[in-house]
Amino acid sequence: MQHRQASTDEDATRSLTARFNSVRARSEHDCAPLEIEDYSLQAMPETSPPKWHLAHTTWFFETFLLEPFLPGYTPFNPAFRYLFNSYYNSIGEQFSRAQRGLLSRPTLTEVLAWRETVNQGVRGLLARGLDEEMHRRLLIGLHHEQQHQELFFTDIQYSLSCNPLGPAYREHTGPWLSGQHTPPLQWHAIPEGLCAIGATETDAFAFDNETPRHRAFLPAFELASRPVTNGEWLAFMADGGYDDPALWLSDGWTARQQQGWQAPLYWQQDEHAGWQSFTLYGMQPVDPARPVCHISAYEADAFARWAGARLPTEYEWEAAAQHLDAQVADGQFIGDGHYHPRPVRATQLLGSVWEWTASSYGPYPGYQAPAGALGEYNGKFMCNQLVLRGGSCVSDADHLRTSYRNFFYPPDRWQFSGLRLARGKQP
Amino acid sequence: MQHRQASTDEDATRSLTARFNSVRARSEHDCAPLEIEDYSLQAMPETSPPKWHLAHTTWFFETFLLEPFLPGYTPFNPAFRYLFNSYYNSIGEQFSRAQRGLLSRPTLTEVLAWRETVNQGVRGLLARGLDEEMHRRLLIGLHHEQQHQELFFTDIQYSLSCNPLGPAYREHTGPWLSGQHTPPLQWHAIPEGLCAIGATETDAFAFDNETPRHRAFLPAFELASRPVTNGEWLAFMADGGYDDPALWLSDGWTARQQQGWQAPLYWQQDEHAGWQSFTLYGMQPVDPARPVCHISAYEADAFARWAGARLPTEYEWEAAAQHLDAQVADGQFIGDGHYHPRPVRATQLLGSVWEWTASSYGPYPGYQAPAGALGEYNGKFMCNQLVLRGGSCVSDADHLRTSYRNFFYPPDRWQFSGLRLARGKQP
Amino acid sequence: MQHRQASTDEDATRSLTARFNSVRARSEHDCAPLEIEDYSLQAMPETSPPKWHLAHTTWFFETFLLEPFLPGYTPFNPAFRYLFNSYYNSIGEQFSRAQRGLLSRPTLTEVLAWRETVNQGVRGLLARGLDEEMHRRLLIGLHHEQQHQELFFTDIQYSLSCNPLGPAYREHTGPWLSGQHTPPLQWHAIPEGLCAIGATETDAFAFDNETPRHRAFLPAFELASRPVTNGEWLAFMADGGYDDPALWLSDGWTARQQQGWQAPLYWQQDEHAGWQSFTLYGMQPVDPARPVCHISAYEADAFARWAGARLPTEYEWEAAAQHLDAQVADGQFIGDGHYHPRPVRATQLLGSVWEWTASSYGPYPGYQAPAGALGEYNGKFMCNQLVLRGGSCVSDADHLRTSYRNFFYPPDRWQFSGLRLARGKQP
Amino acid sequence: MQHRQASTDEDATRSLTARFNSVRARSEHDCAPLEIEDYSLQAMPETSPPKWHLAHTTWFFETFLLEPFLPGYTPFNPAFRYLFNSYYNSIGEQFSRAQRGLLSRPTLTEVLAWRETVNQGVRGLLARGLDEEMHRRLLIGLHHEQQHQELFFTDIQYSLSCNPLGPAYREHTGPWLSGQHTPPLQWHAIPEGLCAIGATETDAFAFDNETPRHRAFLPAFELASRPVTNGEWLAFMADGGYDDPALWLSDGWTARQQQGWQAPLYWQQDEHAGWQSFTLYGMQPVDPARPVCHISAYEADAFARWAGARLPTEYEWEAAAQHLDAQVADGQFIGDGHYHPRPVRATQLLGSVWEWTASSYGPYPGYQAPAGALGEYNGKFMCNQLVLRGGSCVSDADHLRTSYRNFFYPPDRWQFSGLRLARGKQP
Repeated sequence: MQHRQASTDEDATRSLTARFNSVRARSEHDCAPLEIEDYSLQAMPETSPPKWHLAHTTWFFETFLLEPFLPGYTPFNPAFRYLFNSYYNSIGEQFSRAQRGLLSRPTLTEVLAWRETVNQGVRGLLARGLDEEMHRRLLIGLHHEQQHQELFFTDIQYSLSCNPLGPAYREHTGPWLSGQHTPPLQWHAIPEGLCAIGATETDAFAFDNETPRHRAFLPAFELASRPVTNGEWLAFMADGGYDDPALWLSDGWTARQQQGWQAPLYWQQDEHAGWQSFTLYGMQPVDPARPVCHISAYEADAFARWAGARLPTEYEWEAAAQHLDAQVADGQFIGDGHYHPRPVRATQLLGSVWEWTASSYGPYPGYQAPAGALGEYNGKFMCNQLVLRGGSCVSDADHLRTSYRNFFYPPDRWQFSGLRLARGKQP
Repeated sequence: MQHRQASTDEDATRSLTARFNSVRARSEHDCAPLEIEDYSLQAMPETSPPKWHLAHTTWFFETFLLEPFLPGYTPFNPAFRYLFNSYYNSIGEQFSRAQRGLLSRPTLTEVLAWRETVNQGVRGLLARGLDEEMHRRLLIGLHHEQQHQELFFTDIQYSLSCNPLGPAYREHTGPWLSGQHTPPLQWHAIPEGLCAIGATETDAFAFDNETPRHRAFLPAFELASRPVTNGEWLAFMADGGYDDPALWLSDGWTARQQQGWQAPLYWQQDEHAGWQSFTLYGMQPVDPARPVCHISAYEADAFARWAGARLPTEYEWEAAAQHLDAQVADGQFIGDGHYHPRPVRATQLLGSVWEWTASSYGPYPGYQAPAGALGEYNGKFMCNQLVLRGGSCVSDADHLRTSYRNFFYPPDRWQFSGLRLARGKQP
Repeated sequence: MQHRQASTDEDATRSLTARFNSVRARSEHDCAPLEIEDYSLQAMPETSPPKWHLAHTTWFFETFLLEPFLPGYTPFNPAFRYLFNSYYNSIGEQFSRAQRGLLSRPTLTEVLAWRETVNQGVRGLLARGLDEEMHRRLLIGLHHEQQHQELFFTDIQYSLSCNPLGPAYREHTGPWLSGQHTPPLQWHAIPEGLCAIGATETDAFAFDNETPRHRAFLPAFELASRPVTNGEWLAFMADGGYDDPALWLSDGWTARQQQGWQAPLYWQQDEHAGWQSFTLYGMQPVDPARPVCHISAYEADAFARWAGARLPTEYEWEAAAQHLDAQVADGQFIGDGHYHPRPVRATQLLGSVWEWTASSYGPYPGYQAPAGALGEYNGKFMCNQLVLRGGSCVSDADHLRTSYRNFFYPPDRWQFSGLRLARGKQP
Repeated sequence: MQHRQASTDEDATRSLTARFNSVRARSEHDCAPLEIEDYSLQAMPETSPPKWHLAHTTWFFETFLLEPFLPGYTPFNPAFRYLFNSYYNSIGEQFSRAQRGLLSRPTLTEVLAWRETVNQGVRGLLARGLDEEMHRRLLIGLHHEQQHQELFFTDIQYSLSCNPLGPAYREHTGPWLSGQHTPPLQWHAIPEGLCAIGATETDAFAFDNETPRHRAFLPAFELASRPVTNGEWLAFMADGGYDDPALWLSDGWTARQQQGWQAPLYWQQDEHAGWQSFTLYGMQPVDPARPVCHISAYEADAFARWAGARLPTEYEWEAAAQHLDAQVADGQFIGDGHYHPRPVRATQLLGSVWEWTASSYGPYPGYQAPAGALGEYNGKFMCNQLVLRGGSCVSDADHLRTSYRNFFYPPDRWQFSGLRLARGKQP
């Protein structure tokens, strides 16, 4: 058939197959330190169990690639179409999100068998050659799986934190406290002007929500050279930051009152040892030199007001990244092998912690959601959430760009979410 | 004292006194059709009882004007400082918002006496002459009271709608159904370019959230010549608009499911008479020629998607208003004497119904909240709400501007909230 | 007609008419100290506004007496059948209980006019003579109204307590603190044996739930000579009674934790003046000599366990009342003119405070609910509630009997509910 | 030591050791058909995961027997004292009941190791000889574990029912529908008189809540010869039993409305195959010949009213069991090897389904809770629950008596709870 001829280059196929194998293998590799019992953990509706992540990413390839394009492919188990659909209404009804932890069946063994079956199917498709649409879907499927790999870490950290035994995802070797001095905060001045926002044509991959690239006019502003640290956060706390309503947005103060926030998520004060924080390495002392994380947008906003600054908009963040020629390669990502933000460096933009912006997550001017079920991927979430930029220590560098838009609700705290300050231009 | 000399012109004082008297009198005039029992009605936490509106607007003048500036003034009743503070944390704690309907005391008679006492105090201050800060606060107080006058109407409509007897605020005379043909929708084309957004220096008054005026770059777009009508909304409903998740934002679909929305707020289908709607005139037939109102932002967004269009941003709305030289005087406002939107006209921008925009309510670049308690007026609500533009049939023309920013949460429906379509430039 | 001949004696009719007039007039008399704004107050779903009590008791006579028996009677307003039906499913649907406070219409004036119309109708029926069924329903209607008169007091006390102004239903004259010494607790020993429980044939009136009279075997026990006092309750509090889970039933401890109970309802500790309690006379000091009231059954049970005793069963309470020949005339009831329990006397069984028993509210052996809508009066509530005995300072002596069974849910606290201790026979 | 001499008889020790081994082994045997992933399932707060049952029963022996009595015993893991305490406040705080499903650690392997350690400890204690208190605690521990074995079945059935895959605990062989004719209902007449209620001195074991044995006077009544069947329940449903408020208690009707009950728990109507029910054998057709089960007390009460009968009191049930000389050996219990009620027999009192009674769960006259933590075993639950009698198909015959009192909240439905009718004596 005509449309099967698009991708004929053997090198390209070999490279894509290698990338597919690598991404798929990493999901299982990330799960390796777990006990079987951990695979079903779901401590709140917003998180998903490890086994569900393994299954849902597989459902994605089966539903969007194998069923429509691989001749003769029959679903591994038709019931999985319902069980492991996350939110694609066009595909059909979904199993209740809050009850994913109740799916003891299929067992881990069965899910791994499904993964292998689907992997073989996709490899078969790759061997036959992909047309443009198939290629597009395969790439989306890989980036989709990378997103879930990141969620796997944030979700399992949250779930394990609910167990009083405090089990660690991995053991930490060497001292936790770095003893480093935090480099002084500097301000990058960005002049006013028209800037171009959004993914470029030359990007290897970008999500629909990063398009279309368009112009925006920005007044002059200044952006901090690095994220806010735990040490600075402790100063905010010591100064009564959590108890002064004048620092908080109205909805933020309501959330702080209802949730009783007195510190970032996972922080606990030990009578003797001071502030501790639950991490993927279990409970560890709060290191003043590392970036603060696991804070809500409300807390970030209150801190910024306390500091006489503000959160940047996502446009400011992206314009600054262009201005400073920020490189993904310079950031701390999952390949670094450390599952928690390292101490901040003098100048640091990408990686380590996601940075809350002041921007509501919405469509760019001229945005068109893709047709079909994949149109539900991003567009329908464009309300009530805020954009975060930069990626975190558990993101994949291969998955990030300076135009990348992450988004969460303002009260959410279980991501590696931190902040960076901005301010109007100083005369 | 030095700072009492700013406003010495007798004409200005007389004019300001007249305006003060007029605004204050209208609050009581608006309440005239009520029974005493109606003054305590509060049917949901977001609304306030009429008596509370009367009291809170008085609290504003007493707290921000008389107490600090009128020598020898002692509060009418010190407990009212707590009872009738809405959300000013700097002034102290507030009585629970959801329980305002439980304040049978002070009685209406007492509240009216308080109003009179405060009125006399302000008149006394006016007679002595106002300095700049006092003048600023008086103006804010008047606009604040005008806002509450509008809320009075939307709140009492909601409260009366909960009574199965369906009591009307006023009786309607003459036929409700206009029988008018709706003028065809036309598109105003606005070219791309830098525009100036926000209040101008020459505006007589503007809220802090309309400042500072600043530049923004807008791509070309088109804006509909009039709001969407009930007739068009009925077509959306008939086409299954409320039942197709593909039309809805994710949070919108959740709200629609949880609330069971099948039509705008107040609409009821009568087996014989068709769609009826509860209004300030009691239950009336849905008139296809009038603008749709009492819809949430989610419904507005779903309609726009169904119509192959989208909601405008607030920048687009304001730029179009400048481009079209829209005049407040052309709109249907409270002075019109009709407490429900009239049938749409061929070209209509301001008044009649508030129009949801796609813009999250946030600070303009360079925004500075005023110092002191009045800094809590607008800034702390800049999260999670959407901007509405244009004013409604129960707004005061004297209170509106094309730069005016109203804001509500996306699911809110009890305002006179409608929508106007926008779309990218057609080639 | 044959069945109109039952009640022909003129004296009986005159006496019954007088009683009807008296009961009906008292409802309005009790409301006299209120402001119009108070008539709509409903501070929680379990309570009803004064105006609703006035209307619902009128609905009862209209629905069960005038509509079926008064020729030519047409309902005052057909919508009231729905609005003022409390829980009689056989009569039709009911307006939402929690929203009774939203019924600003009908106004008080209209409700009073309805009362007068129904009063005249009933008087007309009385003049024509009542048959047995009509007589039965009239009596139930009067006792029903007396129940609501008591609820009027407990409900308005609760509603007024939610107003920070602390308005009093009536002003108190004279000192509140009695300075009396509490008479020492004595134990009445009741020997084991068969006793007869329930209303007797000679009772002028009894509710269905007090029938049939039947035998029960009771082991020997001892009953306290008087209720527990505030003074004794303060000792329980001082001894940590509210903080020791070992004293509490499991559900009671859960309620105490969730509600944060540290004292009876309405008690507040003043830094200078010590414990105060909101009463129908406004805020007053806690008088150690008066019976404790406004406690839940859980608190009563915990106190009894702390005191090395227990709550009596309702059978024990009734058997003791027979054994001691307790007289209604000896108790403090509403005719006393004091709207709060007076200091306890040496021996006191009926009146002053309702006394929680350990008995679940259930049907007596052989109980038959009456046929028709009046069968919904008592029987369908026979689950999950506990019986209280004895009547309170706001009950009508004319309405009480030693066989009278009141019932509330264990966590309820807004009645004048107290306790009396019991214990097994001491050797 | 003196108090170690109580149990010296070697045969008794050998028999007790055998019983201990047998009870402990059965917990693990019951779990054998599960996958590891199933051990953490907790689908509602009222249920517990299998692993938690295994751990908590072990905690009981460690806490109440090994720690106080076995010299040199140190807890397996001190954190387990907190994690696996159910509700014993005297022992300390407890891990949140609703979050037991989040305890992926300790793993199943660790819990089984703990069980073995504790088993060896108890066997060591048995070898040394038990005094009276130790013997009492061991017996309670065994009966406690038998209770949890029953809960294991009802809990896992509920958890598996939430999985759309409908996994079966065991496969069923042979036809499910018995095709049996239900024996006609007969009425056992029990004459009025004094009866003795509660455990006798000669009972091998009884819980504190069955004591003290005491006299009660019962009017004459009649008790049905067998439980109500699915066939009879289908007739109730067909007659609109779920839609007629006149049949329901007030709280029952509220529950039915809020939960949308239209059939017993686990029933689903299949378009083609008719009514099906989820069982421990997966989805099976509803067999008219089997007793109805998985109904709330509210449904049982409504059925009885519909049938012109009522629920028996627990005293009536126990008196009838004595009168009829009912034998545990005649009932269907777990030893039967069938994990669902079999078709009813002509005369059947014990086993198969628990039978709701009309009796509130309360203390018997003269009841004394044991001192210490074990005093929290039963007494503190004596409020708001109803008594069930007779035992079910997943109870252990060795654990049951005619004086045995089970108790659940009226809306609870996940037990094997059915009903038996009673009525007043027919003349």
